[in-house]
Amino acid sequence: MKLVRARATGTSDWTPRMAPVDLVPRFQAQGYGAAEVARRRLWVEHKTGVRLDHVGACSIPTEQMRGNVENPIGSVQMPLGIAGPLLIRGEHARGTFYVPLATTEGALVRSYERGMVTLTRAGGATTRIEVDENRVCPAFIFGSVADAARFVEEIDGHLPALCVAAESTTRHGRLLRIEPRQVGREVIVTFCYHTGDAQGMNMIVKATERACEWLVQRGLAPSYHIFSGFSSEKRASAALLGAGKGKTVIAGACLPAALTRACLHATPEALVRTWHRAAIGHFLAGAVGCNAQFANGLTALFIACGQDVANVVNAHAGITNFELTDEGDIYASVTLPSLTVATVGGGTALGTSRECLSLLGCAGSGNAPRFAEIAAATALAGEISMAAAIASGEFVAAHEQYGRNRPAD
Amino acid sequence: MKLVRARATGTSDWTPRMAPVDLVPRFQAQGYGAAEVARRRLWVEHKTGVRLDHVGACSIPTEQMRGNVENPIGSVQMPLGIAGPLLIRGEHARGTFYVPLATTEGALVRSYERGMVTLTRAGGATTRIEVDENRVCPAFIFGSVADAARFVEEIDGHLPALCVAAESTTRHGRLLRIEPRQVGREVIVTFCYHTGDAQGMNMIVKATERACEWLVQRGLAPSYHIFSGFSSEKRASAALLGAGKGKTVIAGACLPAALTRACLHATPEALVRTWHRAAIGHFLAGAVGCNAQFANGLTALFIACGQDVANVVNAHAGITNFELTDEGDIYASVTLPSLTVATVGGGTALGTSRECLSLLGCAGSGNAPRFAEIAAATALAGEISMAAAIASGEFVAAHEQYGRNRPAD
Amino acid sequence: MKLVRARATGTSDWTPRMAPVDLVPRFQAQGYGAAEVARRRLWVEHKTGVRLDHVGACSIPTEQMRGNVENPIGSVQMPLGIAGPLLIRGEHARGTFYVPLATTEGALVRSYERGMVTLTRAGGATTRIEVDENRVCPAFIFGSVADAARFVEEIDGHLPALCVAAESTTRHGRLLRIEPRQVGREVIVTFCYHTGDAQGMNMIVKATERACEWLVQRGLAPSYHIFSGFSSEKRASAALLGAGKGKTVIAGACLPAALTRACLHATPEALVRTWHRAAIGHFLAGAVGCNAQFANGLTALFIACGQDVANVVNAHAGITNFELTDEGDIYASVTLPSLTVATVGGGTALGTSRECLSLLGCAGSGNAPRFAEIAAATALAGEISMAAAIASGEFVAAHEQYGRNRPAD
Amino acid sequence: MKLVRARATGTSDWTPRMAPVDLVPRFQAQGYGAAEVARRRLWVEHKTGVRLDHVGACSIPTEQMRGNVENPIGSVQMPLGIAGPLLIRGEHARGTFYVPLATTEGALVRSYERGMVTLTRAGGATTRIEVDENRVCPAFIFGSVADAARFVEEIDGHLPALCVAAESTTRHGRLLRIEPRQVGREVIVTFCYHTGDAQGMNMIVKATERACEWLVQRGLAPSYHIFSGFSSEKRASAALLGAGKGKTVIAGACLPAALTRACLHATPEALVRTWHRAAIGHFLAGAVGCNAQFANGLTALFIACGQDVANVVNAHAGITNFELTDEGDIYASVTLPSLTVATVGGGTALGTSRECLSLLGCAGSGNAPRFAEIAAATALAGEISMAAAIASGEFVAAHEQYGRNRPAD
Repeated sequence: MKLVRARATGTSDWTPRMAPVDLVPRFQAQGYGAAEVARRRLWVEHKTGVRLDHVGACSIPTEQMRGNVENPIGSVQMPLGIAGPLLIRGEHARGTFYVPLATTEGALVRSYERGMVTLTRAGGATTRIEVDENRVCPAFIFGSVADAARFVEEIDGHLPALCVAAESTTRHGRLLRIEPRQVGREVIVTFCYHTGDAQGMNMIVKATERACEWLVQRGLAPSYHIFSGFSSEKRASAALLGAGKGKTVIAGACLPAALTRACLHATPEALVRTWHRAAIGHFLAGAVGCNAQFANGLTALFIACGQDVANVVNAHAGITNFELTDEGDIYASVTLPSLTVATVGGGTALGTSRECLSLLGCAGSGNAPRFAEIAAATALAGEISMAAAIASGEFVAAHEQYGRNRPAD
Repeated sequence: MKLVRARATGTSDWTPRMAPVDLVPRFQAQGYGAAEVARRRLWVEHKTGVRLDHVGACSIPTEQMRGNVENPIGSVQMPLGIAGPLLIRGEHARGTFYVPLATTEGALVRSYERGMVTLTRAGGATTRIEVDENRVCPAFIFGSVADAARFVEEIDGHLPALCVAAESTTRHGRLLRIEPRQVGREVIVTFCYHTGDAQGMNMIVKATERACEWLVQRGLAPSYHIFSGFSSEKRASAALLGAGKGKTVIAGACLPAALTRACLHATPEALVRTWHRAAIGHFLAGAVGCNAQFANGLTALFIACGQDVANVVNAHAGITNFELTDEGDIYASVTLPSLTVATVGGGTALGTSRECLSLLGCAGSGNAPRFAEIAAATALAGEISMAAAIASGEFVAAHEQYGRNRPAD
Repeated sequence: MKLVRARATGTSDWTPRMAPVDLVPRFQAQGYGAAEVARRRLWVEHKTGVRLDHVGACSIPTEQMRGNVENPIGSVQMPLGIAGPLLIRGEHARGTFYVPLATTEGALVRSYERGMVTLTRAGGATTRIEVDENRVCPAFIFGSVADAARFVEEIDGHLPALCVAAESTTRHGRLLRIEPRQVGREVIVTFCYHTGDAQGMNMIVKATERACEWLVQRGLAPSYHIFSGFSSEKRASAALLGAGKGKTVIAGACLPAALTRACLHATPEALVRTWHRAAIGHFLAGAVGCNAQFANGLTALFIACGQDVANVVNAHAGITNFELTDEGDIYASVTLPSLTVATVGGGTALGTSRECLSLLGCAGSGNAPRFAEIAAATALAGEISMAAAIASGEFVAAHEQYGRNRPAD
Repeated sequence: MKLVRARATGTSDWTPRMAPVDLVPRFQAQGYGAAEVARRRLWVEHKTGVRLDHVGACSIPTEQMRGNVENPIGSVQMPLGIAGPLLIRGEHARGTFYVPLATTEGALVRSYERGMVTLTRAGGATTRIEVDENRVCPAFIFGSVADAARFVEEIDGHLPALCVAAESTTRHGRLLRIEPRQVGREVIVTFCYHTGDAQGMNMIVKATERACEWLVQRGLAPSYHIFSGFSSEKRASAALLGAGKGKTVIAGACLPAALTRACLHATPEALVRTWHRAAIGHFLAGAVGCNAQFANGLTALFIACGQDVANVVNAHAGITNFELTDEGDIYASVTLPSLTVATVGGGTALGTSRECLSLLGCAGSGNAPRFAEIAAATALAGEISMAAAIASGEFVAAHEQYGRNRPAD
């Protein structure tokens, strides 16, 4: 390989190095055996002079990591707390749950626990799933606006063939419909799938690629990019709010005034005022949606339960609402339009992930909707508790009490 | 406690339950001893009928979890891979790094590794930190627009006193300046701090509360809410892009055309075209910034290194840019305006977190800037590799190869 | 009427005045006769001491203003320039047009003219309308998340009845479909209509109100708000980009490199670079879409042609794209997802509005699609010319030349 | 000039036309004399077969149009209504005003009038200007991230020299400060100016160009683009809300409950509920700010008063807030962070514009702040009235009554 020098201003002092770089050892078959993982860890220790005892204290059989990680050297650990009871009256989640939350943020578990207990005393959180589909949005590029427009007109007629092509690659994914959007001389086509109990992105990207190839082979489009950037997978966007992605889940509960005063130390009026105040701040910031801390609870739950944690970025895009009822109680709800969760595939079967999903009765096939409802109810618990901490002025004190031993503060 | 019934329509079938709910046992001193954690885990096992062997295989001394989690029952594990070498020419990070990434997404580590090797062969990634401060944005509420305006005029004069009040609560935080913004009859004041090597939110929330109280006690403001919603902590917002939060970090590199062809199987032109295509999709989605997968790399790095993982939601808000140079090479950069990272406090000292930070030479005081630069260079590696996978059409094949054993696909 | 005093802090010095305030005279039948308009103008002159000679030099018969304005006192005038020729190869607009632009911004007409001439020399702009519908989004409020979810499930079954109810109020509007979105315990239902050649908001708000009442009378929803805030009528929102509102129109053209150099003093590469630069700035600002000056051209055209000018706020939300072709030419396009225009109703029939629409062959029924395509081609002309002015460094000089006599500069 | 053919797919049927196109006649000195304007109008009439009698009924002396329009053919007229009385208790606007509104939307003037009367009876609207500056944001492009970072560090030291350079081009503009933001290897520098009573964009673009050239000539930056896209001039962006542009103006009033019931037919509670409902819809739409109809009132006022109407797109980005006071009254406010208005320059001196500005006591130098406060109070009146129409269910009926004669409905 011949290499030209980087010549841009300011980079002239760089020395391109084509001498062999020191790659991480892969070993045979990519090196997932316990011995190879240990040797690789040793290689890293040697390279860096750092002992990796905790990393090595891994109880997941390393061969099971194949397909979940490359160049494995062990596992990381994060403290796991348990919060509950959380009574849910959903369609898929019904009953009382104790929710595993993996976090290092002091007070988080205690705060969610408070919200869960409050919901439970109020008779539980009601949950519903409105939409359940995941999406891939390839872009087809044409020579002109006219050609692109023609494609938009015609593509719906090819849906049956596209379904056949797409579904030939997967046992679980079903192509539900397609939505073309023309932008200049390109057409971004949203392929909407049901993905069963998997998060399903790999599955449906592969399926969509097959469908795209079918279109190109038939001469219906000259070329495509499999990712147009429109899908908002692992990114935050305003489009997620109205259009969703993954599961759109809603959780709500009516909290009697006496209960909010007793459990949350705040009146319904104060809670609504806190929401109102936050709404103004969110508008001023150009925030995606409006919520206090969806990210906190979802992240802790996702880490515990082997979800694709980067999906928290899209999953956190949602709307919390607090309203007074005519009776002077408060109706609190959360709407999460883009909850991408799974109970099969990804990291769901690994060691602690499977145990944590099992705690919720959510391990394996048929359980993703239940898990989604539990996630939404958990988010609702967090919103209630956080708003109460702000409304009552107890926020700092609570973090003092539960996060006190941290050296940085 | 007397409880009124929820009377809103549709909730009349709820039975408020004031009978004692089944709380998670706290034990003495909140129960952080090994025995109490084991008993609590047993309680959960009993309650749910689920064995928690992997959760119990926790190598972090449980007493160390105090301040990081409540109701601990053990720890969760996530597979850890190692990616590198990554050559960085920053101000704080200089040299070659092997980056620990905790993930369950197959192909992620391999993809970042490819980008890192490419950067290394190109002479390394240049990194810079532009801004380094964290923020809290309380809202002060007045009786009228006129009163609020008066407060805006006067508050700057109180800055010295506010500094004294705020900094009386912390050894590490320094109040740098305040920015008032009037919205109707409230004033949202952004308190900007340097937080040393800590992420620092607890620290500066406490400091800000003290400053707010000083203002209220002097009669300068009638009341305040400590969180206005404007700060975008653990939320995505457009304001993060221009105003930042935490560290604003930039990483860039010039990649010679011959190198992109050899290592990435794509020409600079094809990479720029992929960026351009994605930009259109991001505009159409109303995305916060423009990037391919900041969330993936940051999440994996944050989990490995004991960061507050929910901060990925704000940290992922950034801009990737690919441009042709006059010489036909490509200049690739990432800009992360809201990288909230830490090397002290939070989960940074716990077991695997400390080991992973140490791998990067980033454990403990004085290292947060270095860690931030490594995070930005890692993000850059991911963007290069992802764009190349899309441009070359190899994306699906790569995920097939590395994620193949997942049952859900 | 008994009036309580405003007691909020800071308002205590207000004196509520229930003494008769000095209302603008309405006269008989709201006073649209020439005499009444003149008397009202005189009343204003008397009240303010200002002569309104130009306001009085109104050539629109005042009786025709009924339904367009209240308390009329004459008309305002804005300078009208003419830009062209603009060759369009659309589905509805075909041929060469001279476009009336009402503005007071020097250089605007000259700039658009340059773009139009360039497009004409390139063989014309291609235009297409992808979607043509307008929307109203009432919110239905329920007692609980469960009740709202039930409504979502059921509402589609009522579509035929809703069509009958809605269309009973209008001769021109057709209800095409409904899209419910649940947020907490409310359901926002987007009613999508074809509105013929009218902008149609009044028409479809009335129709939607009838449909809402049908739902409430049947007991299917307890109450509704006719405007949920979701519609983005006369507001900018990210949702407009992907979902549209009004007409979604695209215009594009391939400009040969020799032509851009000759007419625009810029190479295709320089134009693409300018676009790229602007895209980064738009991302950083959290802009709605990406364009240089849709607002300028659309505003000038809307004022000239009697459109509802406030709709520029939603209409301007769109995406300009410049790309190099494989041959080294440039393909330029504009995508306007929310072009709410009309050729009947509103101000379209009044005096100069009708004349300007007639100039474009767009006065009256059957012409809204043609007008929309002309508007998009006009926007494209502006984008090309503006980018060229920036790329070539001629922007300031051009504004110097054409805007020179302004006293403020 | 030699012209290559457009060869992109789909454009191969285009015939580039280098034969002279039929340009609009410019005449001597660009043709602003009455005779030339008439001849040009005749030329258009001949070209299109349309009589332009109303366009010709122009009372503005055509020579005065120089600098405001090119290729003038006359003027357009828009109906002008008068709304008031509007009592304002601002810093710059004090007293009772009758506001000229140019519109063709039936019911608009009546609706604003109702809000104004309500505000007047409540004791008036309080208004304040928080910030008063306009901005240009050029981008400087460097060879590497390191070079760009160095520029960021150094540029503040050049501020005095940049002030001298920038202000050498203008009598009225003052450069207040600069804000650099690095994105990859470019630096976007926001130049913040006070622009006196002018909207000032031309003024400050010219001044900024001079400053940029100074930097380039000194070798401090290799090149720049005068418009980076970051400024949000005539575009909507989230950044406008927190950072402003032009004047940031706030208007508010406390409306006693008895007054809202009597004048607005709605209780404070119902008005707040309407606001709350709309806020949810705005969040779901990813709207820029939250308001009911800033665009309507601002557009009508801007057209009447010779403002740059395209600026409504940025000016409309703002936040309406309604809150209950402890006494059960309502405090209503509007915050407009980007109100770009002028009383000199642009179209402010022309015919009807000057008359309308004079009605408000705002013609000429020294009056832009007063005009800004009137605009904000007008927006507040509109928000109150619109919310009341929605809350009381009278919206459709009002539009029926006042917009009834429109043929399209």
